Amino acid sequence: MKLRSIAELVGGTLAGDGDAEVFSVASPANAGPSQLIFISDASGAGLAESSDAGCVIRPVDLEISFDGATISVPNPKAAFAKAAAVLHGRKSRPTGIHPSAIVAPDAAIGEKVFIGAFCYVGEGSSIGDGTHIRGGAKIGDNVSVGSGCTIHPNVFIEDGCVVGNRVVLKSGAVIGSRGFGFVRDGDELIKFPQIGTVVIEDDVEVGANTCVDRGALGETRIGEGTKIDNLVQVAHNVSIGKRVVIASQTGISGSVKIGDDCVIGGQVGFADHTEIANGTIIGAKSAIFPGKKLRGGAWGGVPVRPLDEYKRLQAHIRSLPRLKADVDELKKLAGRLGNLVRSDEEE
Amino acid sequence: MKLRSIAELVGGTLAGDGDAEVFSVASPANAGPSQLIFISDASGAGLAESSDAGCVIRPVDLEISFDGATISVPNPKAAFAKAAAVLHGRKSRPTGIHPSAIVAPDAAIGEKVFIGAFCYVGEGSSIGDGTHIRGGAKIGDNVSVGSGCTIHPNVFIEDGCVVGNRVVLKSGAVIGSRGFGFVRDGDELIKFPQIGTVVIEDDVEVGANTCVDRGALGETRIGEGTKIDNLVQVAHNVSIGKRVVIASQTGISGSVKIGDDCVIGGQVGFADHTEIANGTIIGAKSAIFPGKKLRGGAWGGVPVRPLDEYKRLQAHIRSLPRLKADVDELKKLAGRLGNLVRSDEEE
Amino acid sequence: MKLRSIAELVGGTLAGDGDAEVFSVASPANAGPSQLIFISDASGAGLAESSDAGCVIRPVDLEISFDGATISVPNPKAAFAKAAAVLHGRKSRPTGIHPSAIVAPDAAIGEKVFIGAFCYVGEGSSIGDGTHIRGGAKIGDNVSVGSGCTIHPNVFIEDGCVVGNRVVLKSGAVIGSRGFGFVRDGDELIKFPQIGTVVIEDDVEVGANTCVDRGALGETRIGEGTKIDNLVQVAHNVSIGKRVVIASQTGISGSVKIGDDCVIGGQVGFADHTEIANGTIIGAKSAIFPGKKLRGGAWGGVPVRPLDEYKRLQAHIRSLPRLKADVDELKKLAGRLGNLVRSDEEE
Repeated sequence: MKLRSIAELVGGTLAGDGDAEVFSVASPANAGPSQLIFISDASGAGLAESSDAGCVIRPVDLEISFDGATISVPNPKAAFAKAAAVLHGRKSRPTGIHPSAIVAPDAAIGEKVFIGAFCYVGEGSSIGDGTHIRGGAKIGDNVSVGSGCTIHPNVFIEDGCVVGNRVVLKSGAVIGSRGFGFVRDGDELIKFPQIGTVVIEDDVEVGANTCVDRGALGETRIGEGTKIDNLVQVAHNVSIGKRVVIASQTGISGSVKIGDDCVIGGQVGFADHTEIANGTIIGAKSAIFPGKKLRGGAWGGVPVRPLDEYKRLQAHIRSLPRLKADVDELKKLAGRLGNLVRSDEEE
Repeated sequence: MKLRSIAELVGGTLAGDGDAEVFSVASPANAGPSQLIFISDASGAGLAESSDAGCVIRPVDLEISFDGATISVPNPKAAFAKAAAVLHGRKSRPTGIHPSAIVAPDAAIGEKVFIGAFCYVGEGSSIGDGTHIRGGAKIGDNVSVGSGCTIHPNVFIEDGCVVGNRVVLKSGAVIGSRGFGFVRDGDELIKFPQIGTVVIEDDVEVGANTCVDRGALGETRIGEGTKIDNLVQVAHNVSIGKRVVIASQTGISGSVKIGDDCVIGGQVGFADHTEIANGTIIGAKSAIFPGKKLRGGAWGGVPVRPLDEYKRLQAHIRSLPRLKADVDELKKLAGRLGNLVRSDEEE
Repeated sequence: MKLRSIAELVGGTLAGDGDAEVFSVASPANAGPSQLIFISDASGAGLAESSDAGCVIRPVDLEISFDGATISVPNPKAAFAKAAAVLHGRKSRPTGIHPSAIVAPDAAIGEKVFIGAFCYVGEGSSIGDGTHIRGGAKIGDNVSVGSGCTIHPNVFIEDGCVVGNRVVLKSGAVIGSRGFGFVRDGDELIKFPQIGTVVIEDDVEVGANTCVDRGALGETRIGEGTKIDNLVQVAHNVSIGKRVVIASQTGISGSVKIGDDCVIGGQVGFADHTEIANGTIIGAKSAIFPGKKLRGGAWGGVPVRPLDEYKRLQAHIRSLPRLKADVDELKKLAGRLGNLVRSDEEE
């Protein structure tokens, strides 16, 4: 890819030979003359200066003495990611259905679809153009998968789920299994019906071994552009907004509603029916207790609190030993004073 | 299903045409004339009244003005779940072994068994009547699976495990892999033998991508009617009682004993060898520290405490800023008093 | 196996018939005459004395009155584990490739390799001597797997990863999927390139359904002899040292560095870029907050603190109600004193 094209793609200013080419991206320390690197700020300048990279993407306001070409942009990391997405596109795979795969005769398979070894596509399902279904992935009956998706090995999509376009489901993800809802009747646990569905909108990424349960009666929905990390639990009837980022091992209980543009750390736990407003940021390992509604802003802790309040409480907890010492001191003084007062009163 | 039969099934009182039929369940807002809904209390009455459902299951002591039929019962949600279990039975699948499946010649396969694509059943294993083994599930050697089970796609059951009747293992569950036990010998970690087994009793449900390790020397056992959610870890030699409910992402370390009828929230952690009495309730994200035995009742926190004590401590933590302010106030006063006393003593 | 050979293997002193044989290990309560047991200390002596085992491994300094043979060693549990490793070796499997498996023509398959049903080995990959790849495991392109490994059912190893010798990957583990890195550019989340690799060194064990993401630009590395439990998350560019033990459901964020010989409890969370020195011990459910570097020793809590400090703080929190009562008492006294002082000053 010519440097001129990269500069154009990322909206940056090129200094150097626009006809020179790079073929891949790398980190500054490992890069060679045909590779592209980036630095975010002055702390990376030294790395770039000693790098053999062919081109460095750099902040507009940072001067570096680099022999090769540079492309200056306001947000070098984003520009680098954009260039990388072109230089390192999705692996190309042959169009067609592997002879070992089993595809229902009435499944609707789009153009340029790849279906790998030991895959299964059930009755009434449809697979959009350019979608890749990798080895061992299983797609139930009446599932709709959009175009340009990558369904990684050993993923399972249960009957009736709907997956949008350009969705990435990583290895071992389970989409649409029956939710965990029981009704106690005397001694017995009766399974509440779990006959709803899952809707995954466009441009969503679901992590490896993450589980998204189907709705009990309604649907579980993951909004457009949302990214979910590995080993996350999304229970029945959860609704997640658009462009939400959810880190690994977070657990989202039934009927939770998460607004758009939220950022949620790892190992967070959401109780049933909690609600999170658009743009809320929740720190790792927080717990959103039953009945809680978060109104936006940054939150942390168990139970979750506004982040500044959480930090203040942490500081108080840290200084408990000093508080205790102060109280002990006061008690000693009080003892002396008490004696004094008593003798005073006795006089 | 005729309304008369539903009323009979759930032990309720029908008001309306007993010969009318419903074919499925739904939520009030989405239901049509051939569907069954339920409401639990007065807060749902309005929803029911504006619903197009054919029949509503309602509490005996709640009057609603609904045009269609009603069935009144003491516990509407349980009645609804019972009716739904009949209306939405397990998906029917053809009896037989998919041509792509590999079943050991000496495996004992019951009547009306479904074994899906790319399944594997090992030597000496037995599969009970009416059990469904879905695509890609793998069953090792000398495994016993009871009747009426549903083994979902990509489940793996390791050699020698025993699974009861009507057990549901959701997609990606791993049953019987070797436990995580090592002995330190100088610098080296030697694997402690993990040659025991797993016994899963009747009517258990194990969630998607949940792991149940085999016993080291003895067994790991999950009692009758116990329900385990997705992404739960059950380590070697754990014993879980009957009708226990365990929410997602909880981790149960080696040799933990959990009694009958416990309810355990999500993301709870149990240290090795802890013991939980029958009927104990443990809140989400709690930690049961080493050596702990819970005697029943409700518990919460890290480390786990009786729930009312936990709540009291939380209140104390919340009011730490006030406590600190009080102490600061007292210190100021003490300063003044100290001066006074000193001057008093000096006189 | 003759008792003489076991004594020799474990470097112990045999009392009894060296020609007698045991064939397996067991727990004291279940053992028969052809089985080997162990006891660690005096508390196990009674169990051993009433056991029908053929031989007991016991501490050198503990006298027991046992009818059968005994082998005395300094570390009985380690000796027992060593003997068990011989008595219960890896399951022997036939050499060869199952007819249903798909192996790329240019894959380099070693001697005595087992490749099970529905396995896939991609182009340019190599599998070392004596490695077992069990049913449904999938190995991408250009993957290198060493010798003597066991790759359990449904494992997935993504393109380009490197796995050493005698590595055990348990069922459902996902090695080398793309990491969770995004760059925000206005409203949009752009995927940061995830084109690095995973290197798993010799003698590593990776738990069931555990995820190890590939490096973004560089590598994710798991050091020699490290053991990782089930459902653990290892993010992109993480570096884990040698002989580290990591319990279940722990989450390790991007670019974390963990030194050699660390022991990490379950459900621990590591923020991005944190660093853990050699030999650090971290208690279950701890959180290592951003920017933190642990210098060795034992740690616990959220946020993580030196263990003794953590315990001291816990004690302070436990006695908050008493502290509150003390302060209330002091306030009462202050009230009285305040009055006194006021009246004193008024005089």
